[in-house]
Amino acid sequence: MELYPYEILETKEAVLADNDAEAESNRKFLREKKVFLVNLMSSPGSGKTTTLLRTIRALNGRYRIGVMEADVDGDVDAAAVASLGVPVIQLHTGGSCHMDASMTRRGLERMDLESLDVIFLENVGNLVCPAEFDVGAAVRVMILSIPEGDDKPLKYPLMFSVSDVMLINKTDVAPVFDFDTEACVERAKTLNPDIRIFSLSALTGDGFPAWIDWLEDAITRWRKSL
Amino acid sequence: MELYPYEILETKEAVLADNDAEAESNRKFLREKKVFLVNLMSSPGSGKTTTLLRTIRALNGRYRIGVMEADVDGDVDAAAVASLGVPVIQLHTGGSCHMDASMTRRGLERMDLESLDVIFLENVGNLVCPAEFDVGAAVRVMILSIPEGDDKPLKYPLMFSVSDVMLINKTDVAPVFDFDTEACVERAKTLNPDIRIFSLSALTGDGFPAWIDWLEDAITRWRKSL
Repeated sequence: MELYPYEILETKEAVLADNDAEAESNRKFLREKKVFLVNLMSSPGSGKTTTLLRTIRALNGRYRIGVMEADVDGDVDAAAVASLGVPVIQLHTGGSCHMDASMTRRGLERMDLESLDVIFLENVGNLVCPAEFDVGAAVRVMILSIPEGDDKPLKYPLMFSVSDVMLINKTDVAPVFDFDTEACVERAKTLNPDIRIFSLSALTGDGFPAWIDWLEDAITRWRKSL
Repeated sequence: MELYPYEILETKEAVLADNDAEAESNRKFLREKKVFLVNLMSSPGSGKTTTLLRTIRALNGRYRIGVMEADVDGDVDAAAVASLGVPVIQLHTGGSCHMDASMTRRGLERMDLESLDVIFLENVGNLVCPAEFDVGAAVRVMILSIPEGDDKPLKYPLMFSVSDVMLINKTDVAPVFDFDTEACVERAKTLNPDIRIFSLSALTGDGFPAWIDWLEDAITRWRKSL
């Protein structure tokens, strides 16, 4: 007697469990290759690409840098990165709203890892799903831009909980928005007491030195741990 | 179960559901109930709630309005809507980054449909996934705010393809951003020649009359089709 004529598959849970194992595999692989991977996440339009371009320029040749641009479609960001002379690949996610560990691995395997020290993965613009998928990065960095509002930690808590760093971007336009930085910081710290927070403007460069110092220090600490 | 000020309903994505069939079922159900459903979508921080509040005020009692607020977590938007004296329920998506048709149906069944003409569903802030899930709404309205940038149709094409209306929000801060409205409109129209586009500021009300006229006309046409 057939008690179970069909199987009910809880796809999300299975996918997430597999993902954690694949993320650990990526992390081990990147440690072997001595490549520091940054997973950069935010809503669409928060300034991921502008922040990335200025960060690469600020690191000023001290690291051999590569970039993986993840998008549902298009290649405008990859073109912008390529114009800096940095090796970049464009990953199309096939409709998926986030990068997972196996997609990241496929991207990494297309990069010339022997010639790189640091890779930035610019994730799909999305404040929800990328937070659920560990890709095996050494650090997770999220951007919240001032026009988005200071209430975002209340509505999208997971992203703030899993990130090592929050960059509060677009300080240059702060005067025309009603954004309470103190309240935002408190909301983020309530979710994640260890999160490091830097206010900056990727457009003007205001606030960049502290973020760059933190990033270089994180790379140094990671290398010592190898 | 108290409907006012608002209820918090824990919904969860039904992974095996045939979303399109359920969306059609919702559409039929809403036609029987003579309730016009608007699916309002955008990135986090584009101004969905502010636009919604001003739209409700602009409709000025000419329709009996209800609201379903969908969020991964929190209830700040539901509280804002409730302060207008409008019936609202807060839908928690259980981690899901979008509303699907069955989650929407569960919300609709908790609303007092006999006493409503129009329901606004404020979807989860996400420019990717909500575009993939028809919820059975009469119209899909998306917001792109000027700080997000004019390149978004290139990177998130599905949202622009499936929407009936694009609201270009935050015109009040246009002077401090490098946003090419003409290029943005052309990119959206290339994806979706029929999309209606209104530039407005939910903060100041600039541009609202044209959007409100369109919405009232859409409601009238829909009622005639019943």
